[in-house]
Amino acid sequence: MPWIKRFLIGKPLKSALLKHEKYNVFWGLSVLSCDAISSVAYAGEQVLLVLAPAVGLLAYNYILAISGAIIGLLVLLTTSYRQMVEQYPSGGGAYAVASDHLGTYAGLTAGVALLLDYVLTVAVSVASGVSNTISAFPWLLPYRVIFSLAILAFLYVGNLRGTRESSHLFGLQAYIFIFSILTMIIAGIVKIFWFGYQPAAIVPICVKSGCESVGIFLLLKAFASGCTALTGVETVSNAVPNFKEPAVTNARKTLSWLAFLVFILFGGLAVLAKLYPVIPSESVTMLAQINAQIFGTSFMYYFIQIATLLILVMAANSAYAGFPMLLSVMGRDGFVPRQFSKRGERLTYSNGITILTILAAVLLVIFDASVTRLIGLYAIGVFTSFTLSQAGMFVYWLCSKPKGWLRRAIITGIAGVITCITVIVIVLTKFTHGAWMVLLAIPLLMIMLLRIKQHYMRVALQITLERHNFRGIKDFIEEKITNHVIIPISGVNEATVRALRYARSISSDVVAFHVVMEDESAAKINEQWRLLKTDIPLVVKYSPYRTIVDPFMDFVHSYYEKNCNPDDIITIILNQFYVKRPSHFFLHNQTTIWFAKELLKEKNVVIAALPTQLRD
Amino acid sequence: MPWIKRFLIGKPLKSALLKHEKYNVFWGLSVLSCDAISSVAYAGEQVLLVLAPAVGLLAYNYILAISGAIIGLLVLLTTSYRQMVEQYPSGGGAYAVASDHLGTYAGLTAGVALLLDYVLTVAVSVASGVSNTISAFPWLLPYRVIFSLAILAFLYVGNLRGTRESSHLFGLQAYIFIFSILTMIIAGIVKIFWFGYQPAAIVPICVKSGCESVGIFLLLKAFASGCTALTGVETVSNAVPNFKEPAVTNARKTLSWLAFLVFILFGGLAVLAKLYPVIPSESVTMLAQINAQIFGTSFMYYFIQIATLLILVMAANSAYAGFPMLLSVMGRDGFVPRQFSKRGERLTYSNGITILTILAAVLLVIFDASVTRLIGLYAIGVFTSFTLSQAGMFVYWLCSKPKGWLRRAIITGIAGVITCITVIVIVLTKFTHGAWMVLLAIPLLMIMLLRIKQHYMRVALQITLERHNFRGIKDFIEEKITNHVIIPISGVNEATVRALRYARSISSDVVAFHVVMEDESAAKINEQWRLLKTDIPLVVKYSPYRTIVDPFMDFVHSYYEKNCNPDDIITIILNQFYVKRPSHFFLHNQTTIWFAKELLKEKNVVIAALPTQLRD
Repeated sequence: MPWIKRFLIGKPLKSALLKHEKYNVFWGLSVLSCDAISSVAYAGEQVLLVLAPAVGLLAYNYILAISGAIIGLLVLLTTSYRQMVEQYPSGGGAYAVASDHLGTYAGLTAGVALLLDYVLTVAVSVASGVSNTISAFPWLLPYRVIFSLAILAFLYVGNLRGTRESSHLFGLQAYIFIFSILTMIIAGIVKIFWFGYQPAAIVPICVKSGCESVGIFLLLKAFASGCTALTGVETVSNAVPNFKEPAVTNARKTLSWLAFLVFILFGGLAVLAKLYPVIPSESVTMLAQINAQIFGTSFMYYFIQIATLLILVMAANSAYAGFPMLLSVMGRDGFVPRQFSKRGERLTYSNGITILTILAAVLLVIFDASVTRLIGLYAIGVFTSFTLSQAGMFVYWLCSKPKGWLRRAIITGIAGVITCITVIVIVLTKFTHGAWMVLLAIPLLMIMLLRIKQHYMRVALQITLERHNFRGIKDFIEEKITNHVIIPISGVNEATVRALRYARSISSDVVAFHVVMEDESAAKINEQWRLLKTDIPLVVKYSPYRTIVDPFMDFVHSYYEKNCNPDDIITIILNQFYVKRPSHFFLHNQTTIWFAKELLKEKNVVIAALPTQLRD
Repeated sequence: MPWIKRFLIGKPLKSALLKHEKYNVFWGLSVLSCDAISSVAYAGEQVLLVLAPAVGLLAYNYILAISGAIIGLLVLLTTSYRQMVEQYPSGGGAYAVASDHLGTYAGLTAGVALLLDYVLTVAVSVASGVSNTISAFPWLLPYRVIFSLAILAFLYVGNLRGTRESSHLFGLQAYIFIFSILTMIIAGIVKIFWFGYQPAAIVPICVKSGCESVGIFLLLKAFASGCTALTGVETVSNAVPNFKEPAVTNARKTLSWLAFLVFILFGGLAVLAKLYPVIPSESVTMLAQINAQIFGTSFMYYFIQIATLLILVMAANSAYAGFPMLLSVMGRDGFVPRQFSKRGERLTYSNGITILTILAAVLLVIFDASVTRLIGLYAIGVFTSFTLSQAGMFVYWLCSKPKGWLRRAIITGIAGVITCITVIVIVLTKFTHGAWMVLLAIPLLMIMLLRIKQHYMRVALQITLERHNFRGIKDFIEEKITNHVIIPISGVNEATVRALRYARSISSDVVAFHVVMEDESAAKINEQWRLLKTDIPLVVKYSPYRTIVDPFMDFVHSYYEKNCNPDDIITIILNQFYVKRPSHFFLHNQTTIWFAKELLKEKNVVIAALPTQLRD
């Protein structure tokens, strides 16, 4: 029903509107920075979940230190990325940088790693948003997966509508979240230091012996889990072409704001986690527990939990901006099917949007929409691409030596080494928690993309005219060839008659063909054919077991053998109904589709579809 | 990758093999009766789940009475169905009977109700099978939904392979289950009456006050839940054509065996439930609890739980036999798209099998693979169709009065009245537990199917030649029309050249058309075109925003206006690549598909696809 599509997706947009579908800093920050900003809703909690079972209450002492390390990494990365945006205003980010300066394989690794992490961003953000909502409304617990899928559906439709509209649709929520968390941080600190509130002491939940000693492995694992807070920095640099002019300046401003906000929110939440100890739990998030201790069950409690859901939906949405854009860049290089590089009716890359939705839905169903289960797969891709893009930029600064290259190379080099170490830490500490799947998926996907590229190149070679040197081609085109026509018919009707008329206009050798399921039908169709009084012959074949394609193909083959020379063409005219309602599509043309599928395998055959527009 | 398909689905079967894909009584029973037999794994438990929370331990006293009522209903239904099979050897069951004797609407109601219940049979059986497995292997609990979907996938592939092979694939498990439950019943009785075993007294779990009194509503609700044991009786009568000759005798024998087995197993389990009281639980099924009390954690315990999983998979499989068959019968009447009446490569109705799998998967995901949540929707469809088919047969016996009609009419009449009362009971007692969804879905689906039928009839009217009385048609066919050719090209290559050659053979007015994304590409393609030395003109249009379809359609329209008379035809020649690997399909032809989709809307246009077979 087209009106549903129109209602949900909106009218098709003219290409000229493309320029207006772009962000300024205010909207760009709201759409593209949410991934990073929203990570504060789960990154701190994941750190706690790693530490608490092993070291109990001591965990709260380490949270601040680990958060400090993560924030330091953020500042370094942002500085480095601000430099990169300047050199790569066309987007593509890590993929483009690594391809240009480190070669195809490095570029492809970065691209594939990023694609995977975009999918994980959607899955993790939606799962975390759902968890935070369930914390406030526990009766939703049994509907966790369905709820997640409903959010995905909402994102899907919103993004098919187009970039700018989707930023308006979701945009202000980012600022509402920032306001909410800032309020919570201030209120939490004020409540303790001004009003002298004493949080209830919690029972130590250490489950292992030797609670007092924290191993380095554990700290690294906690750090690795917390690094998920940094995913999203690259979204801005990959989406430079989505910014209004001056795009580079706007993107750089957005990056700086982003880093500042993550610093404030993540740091502030870490302080709160130290002040208000919480019990890690699958059913109530850390954020919700702190929130409940500060605001009780007041309006503000629910407001913050809902704002958290919305920012996480926005975070998933920011992957919807990055993923299709990256696929489109890779499509132009021939690594993914070309249709990913073509814009749909609403000037969005609808194919990429669809793929992202399907993959995220699969992850959510498989991992039961649990943040803790998904987190093991997350961040490897982003940090791999961070490392490769820093390495690429490092090579660039060294080779082309632009103004200020030494300072830049040093910053980039340090950032690259540290992100590389982070990748190794994440892989080692999370290997058994899902990291192995990502390590397996990256090379498999790379092989797939390389084979797609090879296929396109081989096809180009197969149909090239270069080896003919264009000699004799004119004669080949002008050479007289004989055209025969076969018309498979399902009955004698207007469409049949129009097919016969067209056949007459393109060939003098025309034959109609019909398959009957029951013997008695043969007499009926022959009688109808006689009424046409045409001299075009009708061949009727009997097929007892309700298959039509096989007898038809047998007829085509035997006809070619008997009546045609090697260079002759047989044109098969198929009646095809055009129905206005898409839902009616499945009621027609199914046999035509099967015929066409088989006929495509034949040489010297042309499949001509004669459309009949049905009024209803 | 075709080899995967071949490996999973098998080689295409020749039509002549159809006759061999049929059941004798032994295999027919194993495939078609599992639905009814396997219900014993959950029907009794659902009775208990209704009674226990309200009346506590008293529940165990009522189980026997309710089971007795259900078994009585089974005997009555079987007797009535044995008579029906004789009159309807062609299958179709309730749908055919109600259509013939009560009219289209009654038939459609029965058909739709049955289709819904086939889907629910798959969902409930798979969910129950998974529950019974999880009872024995509790670590599977978090993977409940995924496990269910994996079983669905297995059933899907098994059924695409074809009927007889699927019975061999799954067949013996039915007998293993019967043996298992019989062993359990005997061992359970012997353990108590011979060895004097005393089951542990269980804590009363009554949650309401007034535990002592059992309301009639509660008993009816328990009865309604237990009636799910009777779903599946109709599967045999709908699948008569799947039996070996003499099909009617074999189907009747199968029905009798079925009733006898349900009687023994369901009755025996009810006795066990009385002897070994259990605590209704979501994580350990009643069957598993009784089983554990009798066999402890011995080999036999695991054997019985696995056998239960397998019979329930078989039960889902029996719906895979019935659902596509019913759809195919309804497809021949024009109520569902015609392709449901066509057999696929392996002589199965693959479209129906696919639809059934998708719908069951959706139900399993939505209801979290929980039998208790699904059971509220179940059995309404089957009992509606029971009622309608009994009513239809009743009318038939009264009107045509064959030998012994009075006795038959009385049996059918009683069965009809009782099943009708059962439907009312089920709807009333389960209305808020999901029955409302079924009550809503039946009329909505009926409207949909009626509209499909109307659509087919209106289309037939639109293209009929009757109103011309066939006068003047010969002249219309022979009239000379002018054919123009437009060839949209993506580049200058072999495929282009072949298209030009074919175009020359069918028209003297040929033009090629190309869309460029960047201005500089225009010069390149014009240079290549010049090398062809052809006098066919090339039109190049510039499209800045990566859409190709719009500029092309604009060109077609303006060309038609400028160069064509009202009766002229424009043939659009599209190059279409044939790739051997289905996975490569997505790498090509996407633009062709979009072109074809738009061109279908045009009058006086023929879309000619010129296949190029790629070697790789």
